[in-house]
Amino acid sequence: MKRIKMPENLPRPVVLLSHRAPVAFRRSADGKRTARRGAGGLVTALTDLSTQLEDVRWVCAAGGGEDVAVAAEHPGEPVPVALTAQPRVVSRDSTEDSVVPLRFVDVPEDQHERFYGVISNPLLWFIQHGLYGANSPDLGDAEHHAFSEGYVPVNEAFADAVAEEVEAAGGSALVMLHDYHFYLVAERVRKRCPDALISQFIHIPWPGPDSWRLLPPSMRERLLHGLLGNDVVAFHTEGSARRFLLSAQELLGLRVDLDTLTVEVDGRTVRARYYPISIDVASLRELASSKAVVDRIEDLSQNLAHGECQLILRVDRTDPSKNIVRGFAAFGLMLEDHPELAGKVRFLALLQPSRLDVPEYAAYLSAIAAQVARINARYDHLDYEPIDLRLIQDLPLAVAAYSACDVLMVNAVVDGMNLVAKEAVVVNRRDAVLVLSENTGAHQELGDYAVTVYPYDIRQQADALYEALTRPREQRRANLRDAAGVIERNDIAAWFSAQLADLAR
Amino acid sequence: MKRIKMPENLPRPVVLLSHRAPVAFRRSADGKRTARRGAGGLVTALTDLSTQLEDVRWVCAAGGGEDVAVAAEHPGEPVPVALTAQPRVVSRDSTEDSVVPLRFVDVPEDQHERFYGVISNPLLWFIQHGLYGANSPDLGDAEHHAFSEGYVPVNEAFADAVAEEVEAAGGSALVMLHDYHFYLVAERVRKRCPDALISQFIHIPWPGPDSWRLLPPSMRERLLHGLLGNDVVAFHTEGSARRFLLSAQELLGLRVDLDTLTVEVDGRTVRARYYPISIDVASLRELASSKAVVDRIEDLSQNLAHGECQLILRVDRTDPSKNIVRGFAAFGLMLEDHPELAGKVRFLALLQPSRLDVPEYAAYLSAIAAQVARINARYDHLDYEPIDLRLIQDLPLAVAAYSACDVLMVNAVVDGMNLVAKEAVVVNRRDAVLVLSENTGAHQELGDYAVTVYPYDIRQQADALYEALTRPREQRRANLRDAAGVIERNDIAAWFSAQLADLAR
Repeated sequence: MKRIKMPENLPRPVVLLSHRAPVAFRRSADGKRTARRGAGGLVTALTDLSTQLEDVRWVCAAGGGEDVAVAAEHPGEPVPVALTAQPRVVSRDSTEDSVVPLRFVDVPEDQHERFYGVISNPLLWFIQHGLYGANSPDLGDAEHHAFSEGYVPVNEAFADAVAEEVEAAGGSALVMLHDYHFYLVAERVRKRCPDALISQFIHIPWPGPDSWRLLPPSMRERLLHGLLGNDVVAFHTEGSARRFLLSAQELLGLRVDLDTLTVEVDGRTVRARYYPISIDVASLRELASSKAVVDRIEDLSQNLAHGECQLILRVDRTDPSKNIVRGFAAFGLMLEDHPELAGKVRFLALLQPSRLDVPEYAAYLSAIAAQVARINARYDHLDYEPIDLRLIQDLPLAVAAYSACDVLMVNAVVDGMNLVAKEAVVVNRRDAVLVLSENTGAHQELGDYAVTVYPYDIRQQADALYEALTRPREQRRANLRDAAGVIERNDIAAWFSAQLADLAR
Repeated sequence: MKRIKMPENLPRPVVLLSHRAPVAFRRSADGKRTARRGAGGLVTALTDLSTQLEDVRWVCAAGGGEDVAVAAEHPGEPVPVALTAQPRVVSRDSTEDSVVPLRFVDVPEDQHERFYGVISNPLLWFIQHGLYGANSPDLGDAEHHAFSEGYVPVNEAFADAVAEEVEAAGGSALVMLHDYHFYLVAERVRKRCPDALISQFIHIPWPGPDSWRLLPPSMRERLLHGLLGNDVVAFHTEGSARRFLLSAQELLGLRVDLDTLTVEVDGRTVRARYYPISIDVASLRELASSKAVVDRIEDLSQNLAHGECQLILRVDRTDPSKNIVRGFAAFGLMLEDHPELAGKVRFLALLQPSRLDVPEYAAYLSAIAAQVARINARYDHLDYEPIDLRLIQDLPLAVAAYSACDVLMVNAVVDGMNLVAKEAVVVNRRDAVLVLSENTGAHQELGDYAVTVYPYDIRQQADALYEALTRPREQRRANLRDAAGVIERNDIAAWFSAQLADLAR
């Protein structure tokens, strides 16, 4: 990642909080301790940031017994870890640049399951992505118990850990909290550390006030008050920032200003802000030119995206919010409309199975497979199946497919940002057309260069796919170049810098 | 209904539009033409209003061949009908007070089915009540066709009929359009009749802008522009009025003012307003003292609401928005919590089967029956079943039950108003407690005197039922008296008067 300049007048010590840790300690079969980098875009970005900061501490969840064991070897202080490609624990006196002190928070497993497996996912996730209809959820004793004996105490434990790190850093740190797991942390940190500057970034969409009425006031008001403990609550889009303020206005009766994007609470002003998250362009391009990716591009070109045949790509978790079933339905409808394209276009879907312990997710995976079978069966006379569905997680393959595809389809019902769209446009080499849902955060920046789709409208998505496949080469090239330019200018470093500059004001 | 005073400076001719007609002509088995009053609260209220107006015309849908035949007997002019208890066609020179000229609009049956059975119900109804989740709707060719070849031409036909009546009345009439069937009428009427004062009342909730993103811009923008052809767009609640303006702001980019509740469009100012609809208190109380009702009260008292046994009541259509399944689940949970109440409380549910040709409604009726069976089976040792489910439509029985119940449960997921709550509080004689969803329009006026429920929270609803059943007699009495007072002051005549006074400004 590019260097980030810390504004002069920000508190120097920074305390980060994320649920996922930047490193995972495990014990291998031969009894040796191993350490691996944490997965996921956010943790990677925060790792790159944290290693640039002079004075930083990172609070995160212990992911297993070995994390707890490592923490126990450093009683009363965070674990100094060099967050390099091969992360390792170092001595507290180490002067290596990449060393970040990590505070692992361990909570009882059943409490964590209630916090994570009942409240955060699926309840908050479903509400914030608008996935519930009339028939669900049913909130009963299990959900109330999961809130009061799961989400609340886990948030308290993390808040106390953050507060202790703030105190250890002198009391006036910059606190940067992350995501929907921790809506109750800021309020509690503020009580203990009134001099801290507290911010929280929410990476999933914030819905309108009515969506929050799925929860009783005993939950929704507590979540909102918890978040209002921040000085800044940040989102990826202006829409989410506005809806957060409308929620504070309608559900708590607070005074908000939709022009300045602020809300008054207890004599303080809380700012809602938006900063679209991005990617590390240089490191993605480096990966794209690696042998692992180049080999896979070769393979895709021979087998899928060759000659007259165009390749449509999607890369997603199997989450109902990603709208995979309707995307295939639209593809099937387009083939019916344009039989001349059968055999001249393939749809590669790289789908990472997700949360299969949640019934809705298991059912969704089945629905995806059923839809694919219906469409492929219709074209059993072709040399190959129109849809190539692969339930795998293979980053080099995904990057190779970004590079080799002619159309990238992102038709999410709603998505906080969607980094797949940003990744594909900076590495694609086939003048790919982006087919992009209006309800993704990415549409804010890339909508002008994409074919916009409306996620419930299968007819419109079918027409959009056809438009993308038949768009003139020059327009494709210009759109892709302009889209890549947007991402190059607003990369992950710019995302951090904008937040830090704002916080310094 | 009480007399309504028409403000002096309103245009005298009034043109009403509702889908349902105030009278239905049929031909009986012996070949004689019959005429009956139209059913439903809105039509009854509009009938009472229209018969008070000096110069009024009413445009409505022809409900069958006999309506068309009657209309054909009056070519080029509306049918003068005396809207008395036994309605009848009269001569055009009749000077009876109750005569209202009716303009029956007849559209081809397949077009009407697309307009009514595909777009209005269920699509608009489901969107506006938040009943869709991630898995529905799928908008395909059928829905696009139903819009362009159903909703649009039917709206055009009604708009043309309204415009012709305005022109016949001299061009500067007051136009009062009703409900979600006719979102495209006002814009077209305005083009033909620029001097008309046009208002539309929407009787179902208006959701936030994000809910409208279920529809593609080709539909949602057309609906919004159509509505913005009005001078005033009216709802039952302030929340709906605000969300209508937010929709115009976010989906059309128009300039809105949330303080004055206005939006600027094409150099005009459109006002969003709210007037909570009400009931005709005197006529309901008259019905409550009729023999039919008194006999049924007697019957209920002997069989259900006697002695130590309390009666919980609900009266609803079997619509998923009414939240009937969760209501029974909450009742079952309360009985588990308080086994001492088993045998001392019964739940009478008077449910009118609704829209059973729509698959979601058929499934919902099954789910209701299944839930009732599960709970009743648990108490097979009692002398009677805890839940008495009756799938019937019997107004005298409903009014008798309003009178005889101890608790009225209205736990709708969301409801534009809910007149059941208002009806029950003015005729109840047992100091009934109102258990009322926060998401009903009625909660705006009656929430202070009710036990509020949060519709997805079964635990909270169970506790609320218990609280209602055990509330001290004096508090019950005071709350019921205050609630009835609110409805007496804001009855149906006040609802009309407020609108007319505002329109006159």
